[in-house]
Amino acid sequence: MALEWEKKAEAKRQAILDSIPQKWRLDRIPSAEEQKDVTDEYIRQFLNSKEIEITETDVGGIAKQIAAGNWTSVEVTEAFCHRASLAHQLVNCVHEFFFDAAIESARALDAYFAKHKKTIGLLHGVPISLKDQLHVKGVETTMGYVGWIGTFQGIKDDPRRGTFESEIVRELRNLGAVFYCKTSCPQTLMSGETFNNIIEYTWNPKNRFLCSGGSSGGEGALIRLKGSPGGLGTDIAGSIRMPAAFSGTYGIKPTWDRLPRRGVATSVYGQNTVSSSIGPMATTAAGTKLLFQAILSQQPWLYDPRVVDMPWRDTLEAETKELTKVTSKGPLVFGVLKTDGIVNPQPPVARAISILTAALTKAGHRVVEWTPPANSHKALMGVLVNSWQYDGGKQVHDAFALSGEKIHPQILRLFGTSPKEPLDGIQIAANNIERRRLQSEYMDYWNSTIEITGTGRPVDGFISPVAPFAAARPQKYRYYGYSAFVNVLNYTSVNVPVTLADQNIDKYDPGYTPLNEVDGATMEDYDAELYDGAHVGLQIVGRSYTEEKMLVIAEYVSELLSQEHT
Amino acid sequence: MALEWEKKAEAKRQAILDSIPQKWRLDRIPSAEEQKDVTDEYIRQFLNSKEIEITETDVGGIAKQIAAGNWTSVEVTEAFCHRASLAHQLVNCVHEFFFDAAIESARALDAYFAKHKKTIGLLHGVPISLKDQLHVKGVETTMGYVGWIGTFQGIKDDPRRGTFESEIVRELRNLGAVFYCKTSCPQTLMSGETFNNIIEYTWNPKNRFLCSGGSSGGEGALIRLKGSPGGLGTDIAGSIRMPAAFSGTYGIKPTWDRLPRRGVATSVYGQNTVSSSIGPMATTAAGTKLLFQAILSQQPWLYDPRVVDMPWRDTLEAETKELTKVTSKGPLVFGVLKTDGIVNPQPPVARAISILTAALTKAGHRVVEWTPPANSHKALMGVLVNSWQYDGGKQVHDAFALSGEKIHPQILRLFGTSPKEPLDGIQIAANNIERRRLQSEYMDYWNSTIEITGTGRPVDGFISPVAPFAAARPQKYRYYGYSAFVNVLNYTSVNVPVTLADQNIDKYDPGYTPLNEVDGATMEDYDAELYDGAHVGLQIVGRSYTEEKMLVIAEYVSELLSQEHT
Repeated sequence: MALEWEKKAEAKRQAILDSIPQKWRLDRIPSAEEQKDVTDEYIRQFLNSKEIEITETDVGGIAKQIAAGNWTSVEVTEAFCHRASLAHQLVNCVHEFFFDAAIESARALDAYFAKHKKTIGLLHGVPISLKDQLHVKGVETTMGYVGWIGTFQGIKDDPRRGTFESEIVRELRNLGAVFYCKTSCPQTLMSGETFNNIIEYTWNPKNRFLCSGGSSGGEGALIRLKGSPGGLGTDIAGSIRMPAAFSGTYGIKPTWDRLPRRGVATSVYGQNTVSSSIGPMATTAAGTKLLFQAILSQQPWLYDPRVVDMPWRDTLEAETKELTKVTSKGPLVFGVLKTDGIVNPQPPVARAISILTAALTKAGHRVVEWTPPANSHKALMGVLVNSWQYDGGKQVHDAFALSGEKIHPQILRLFGTSPKEPLDGIQIAANNIERRRLQSEYMDYWNSTIEITGTGRPVDGFISPVAPFAAARPQKYRYYGYSAFVNVLNYTSVNVPVTLADQNIDKYDPGYTPLNEVDGATMEDYDAELYDGAHVGLQIVGRSYTEEKMLVIAEYVSELLSQEHT
Repeated sequence: MALEWEKKAEAKRQAILDSIPQKWRLDRIPSAEEQKDVTDEYIRQFLNSKEIEITETDVGGIAKQIAAGNWTSVEVTEAFCHRASLAHQLVNCVHEFFFDAAIESARALDAYFAKHKKTIGLLHGVPISLKDQLHVKGVETTMGYVGWIGTFQGIKDDPRRGTFESEIVRELRNLGAVFYCKTSCPQTLMSGETFNNIIEYTWNPKNRFLCSGGSSGGEGALIRLKGSPGGLGTDIAGSIRMPAAFSGTYGIKPTWDRLPRRGVATSVYGQNTVSSSIGPMATTAAGTKLLFQAILSQQPWLYDPRVVDMPWRDTLEAETKELTKVTSKGPLVFGVLKTDGIVNPQPPVARAISILTAALTKAGHRVVEWTPPANSHKALMGVLVNSWQYDGGKQVHDAFALSGEKIHPQILRLFGTSPKEPLDGIQIAANNIERRRLQSEYMDYWNSTIEITGTGRPVDGFISPVAPFAAARPQKYRYYGYSAFVNVLNYTSVNVPVTLADQNIDKYDPGYTPLNEVDGATMEDYDAELYDGAHVGLQIVGRSYTEEKMLVIAEYVSELLSQEHT
């Protein structure tokens, strides 16, 4: 007999499906064995040509078409509602659909445009998806917790239930964005895979044997399937970059205090050592940049005390554009981290690094080896893991206890079956001090590269894997070191899709000797045939507060790589 | 018989005096009863006219005279060394004198200037004092701890001893600053008075019955006596603003991440709830502004990972200057906090508020009542006090235990005679959450003032006491609520000297009924005759990251008030 929480989860799962209009339901969902890749050609079969045209346009393109009066917000919204419905049925990437409210918003925007002959903001009429950590008026937020169903963040009868909206949602609304769905995330948000007892598992749309990444895994999958032109994720250890990399989309993890997180749900709160960043993900680098820039135009620092008073800096954007042209100021110079020495990347990731390095070099830029201080990446990871144990796991276990639901193995590994002793103020202070030491040491290393760049500047950024693999296989996400160190350093980082795994090329050296147990397991997990066709992304990491620079570089690199392919 | 720590403290105290050349020693130090006020006229009797001219010039003025070739850095340095020697003998405000190194620096700068006919930076040849938290090569840092004598921050045989320099010291050196002394601070830094077992008590130079403020109390006293044109303090609960207010000088507590604290000593570390700010203090508002601006020109964000990438913003400076002129954009509008409802300011402070309000109103600006959310100030203070108990006082007790020295009563009140149980991660998280809630609530209140300003903007800043009194009497610093709430909010705040206590005007209402016990004691502590002549300062508080705006306003207000006096 089903347990109470199972019934609730099942009902919610069904309610999500029921919110999809009958006309958009698929009769049958093929298995991964039958249909590994459900992107592009596959999903297009269920759409008409106008819907395809609309949904395959990026954030900026859509905004332009609507501003030019070529498309209405209603037709754009309907097209994305349709495609998002298909996406969810194929890979389980959505927690909430609210199409009626979306169409109502779109109608109001069209009416405004008809009356005033102008848009209300930079994102007038553009559908934007939101990770299910964001609160939207009239819509539930479960974050995948069964115990949060019918509550406000687990609190019954809270007056904010159904009325509250996160600050960044208000700002996007001001800009004219249309909201229509909230996307899946893992229990506790603390995983690079996306699973929970409601939607079960979010699959990678390009390769349904693999995970879609996490914790913003629903966003990555939905955006890759073009069920959304762009949306918002959050990242405390890679949660924007992992899904972006695994799904072949773009995403930026900004410095933590650039965009507002006020009123964003979480079940791990009040830890002030390493903070989560909120940031945009999109189908193109340009779309990611536009979303970031648009939010800043709302002056979020006036409304969220944790946001720094720093508008989009046109000067930094222009200076970086100039550098991409290899002018008298010298080329761009990138560090490249081929391995962190703890876990070596699997062959597809290693090859992606070679491709990106070659493309940059060919374009006249310079690439130097990135050799951070000995043991720094391991120590940075240690600081982050410690910071999650401050409360001994009490907060997440409180959230589970609301329903008594099943805790998935990936979460058990981190938080156990019950809370442990919390850390004390002395231990926490030691962890904070260790973080600062590591940040300073890493900064000194970065500055020291001025000696080898030949440009009079330290490196402009560095290239690094986001994970040792193109994407993790279920329950085989063994190592977070490639994404997490960036959060502890509070750097900014943009994911750029580079290539696809290719079973004919991507093979381990026959004599490969694993570095250690985790590296050995990572090698064992690689299966060239299974991985074939998977997206491979890389991150380009910048110093704190250099989002403008890194977004320009991401746009430039994506153009460079697309030229390579043609 | 003297205890071991007493001997060490006595030897260090004598060593400080011994480092003053014989020619600058005073035969006899008058008692406070004999000579309450040792500023201006009193101290000038020991100086020649050239020394007086030099030492009564502000930071910018000195830099100009040297850059014009009118003064040499050596003569300027010697004049300040002399005056600082006198200052220390009169009020005990210095921990370290290093005149030989200073003269050597000054000579090198003069030689550079003679050779290149230009300065090396904005502060070429300007003597700058440093709170004894700052490390300078070749100079000891005790921070007032007997157990730190002969060590590096309490660690024996640490290779950094005598070689290490704080990042901000390096930056000031780059700018051409000359270092010659480090100033006194209280045990643990956690007091609004300045006392320790080495220098004993730093007295207020304007009224030697009162304290000089703390924890940057040596800076305030030295700057007021014009033994320094400007220097650096730190502030986690008012430690720049209290000494600035009590000594009749200027000082800014910036948003915590604008200036670099890397490599600055402390004995309360690793607490990430409310951070300390480092900031300049000076004899004039213009001097304070110049120091702030000069440090930013060194791009500290490239060298300290905790500093935000935010250069001095000329636009914000220009916009604010425009507003001071009462143009079409409307006048400046200030909130005014006459009382926080917990402790009412003593009469001199209440009168200072009236004076500043009248001056602003007369100049065409607007003043509105500042009525922050109910209980917010009390709760903000609570968050700060909690944050100091995270480690149960272990860190400060470790520092005391190095020598077994006497803990002063002001510190016993906060930390007891021995460490308590530390707080745990759950309690710490709760305190972090409470802080964010209070910050958001206060921000919403600030934004809401747009309804009453009539300028289309919320208030430009608000005026508040720094303390309930002109300065505290020894061991009578009972209430920190007026300064500390600003740190918890992470706002910026500049102290401006407003008036002098006047026994003929400043009297409590005969029917005054205390609000509570602390308010009653504060009333009891007031003695019109004793306080007569004391400086009264007020703070002008701005939103986070508005240092440019607040420094322009401080300069404007100081001009306005000096016009009032003439």
